[in-house]
Amino acid sequence: MADPTHCQLALDPNVREAARRRLASVRGHVEGIVRMLEREDVYCVDVLRQLKAVDGALSKVGDAVLRSHLHHHVTSARERGDADEIVDELMEILKYR
Amino acid sequence: MADPTHCQLALDPNVREAARRRLASVRGHVEGIVRMLEREDVYCVDVLRQLKAVDGALSKVGDAVLRSHLHHHVTSARERGDADEIVDELMEILKYR
Amino acid sequence: MADPTHCQLALDPNVREAARRRLASVRGHVEGIVRMLEREDVYCVDVLRQLKAVDGALSKVGDAVLRSHLHHHVTSARERGDADEIVDELMEILKYR
Amino acid sequence: MADPTHCQLALDPNVREAARRRLASVRGHVEGIVRMLEREDVYCVDVLRQLKAVDGALSKVGDAVLRSHLHHHVTSARERGDADEIVDELMEILKYR
Repeated sequence: MADPTHCQLALDPNVREAARRRLASVRGHVEGIVRMLEREDVYCVDVLRQLKAVDGALSKVGDAVLRSHLHHHVTSARERGDADEIVDELMEILKYR
Repeated sequence: MADPTHCQLALDPNVREAARRRLASVRGHVEGIVRMLEREDVYCVDVLRQLKAVDGALSKVGDAVLRSHLHHHVTSARERGDADEIVDELMEILKYR
Repeated sequence: MADPTHCQLALDPNVREAARRRLASVRGHVEGIVRMLEREDVYCVDVLRQLKAVDGALSKVGDAVLRSHLHHHVTSARERGDADEIVDELMEILKYR
Repeated sequence: MADPTHCQLALDPNVREAARRRLASVRGHVEGIVRMLEREDVYCVDVLRQLKAVDGALSKVGDAVLRSHLHHHVTSARERGDADEIVDELMEILKYR
């Protein structure tokens, strides 16, 4: 983000800390699947189930960050004067979400 | 997987090794986002972009495992006699995919 | 929408007209699949392909309406004083999108 | 579908009739949104909610057709000898699903 108008838009500290903890747990989950994939007899569907669980956990982190972004930055974009950039970058992220 | 008819259905070794390597890289990516979230000035949208990239990488791993499962196990389920279970567990995974 | 603070938040006329035309074309597409399903020899995968195409067309309509909503209503919510409702209803829609 | 090995793979009649009825109802729902978009005061989020409902209804039709395809055609592909095509076309549909 080189855009100077965005410089002050930091993620809310509480949401950031909650996201960090959740994501550290996701990292452990992914580490578990890596080890699972070292076993010769691992069943495809068990891997797919674990990947789906990780995907769900990532979505929860993403939802919390998105909600915070909407609340703290997007709803005040018009006042701040960066509505166009805010909408463009948001649409880029929401595509195929 | 306690079902004995499924015991022989191990993930193809080449696909398993490729998935393991890719997922080890995903773990590194998640680790990077955890560190990113330690920075007070991290921008929400940058976090969302990284989460989306991880999601895309996980989808690629899942697609490779799914393709292998379809090829090696699902297409032969009728011969093997476990078509009903194979379809049920597959539909469970594909829901909201 | 009974909420009086939202009463003035109408969809932008140009976006509305474009969405209406696109959706009329989606309706025609769905009508085509209904007829396709009257044929005894229709192949499952051909139906799934058509459903996927409709899904893609609906997503484009949704993206245009969402972009317009973000641009005209969400970015000015703080000024207007309805940021909380705007964020809540937006998150409800974006879930599992 | 020009592929002759696929010619016999018709959608199960019961699933087809249920899908046809459901999709006729989806068409009516889309028609309702088209009319909704003729109103000058229509609220963006109400349109997005309706699009999401249609998307959910389409997914249910797709799930039923997919389950039938897996059950009747994919699980017997190895016996029939068209496993490669069956897997390729299925993966094409499941991408970004």
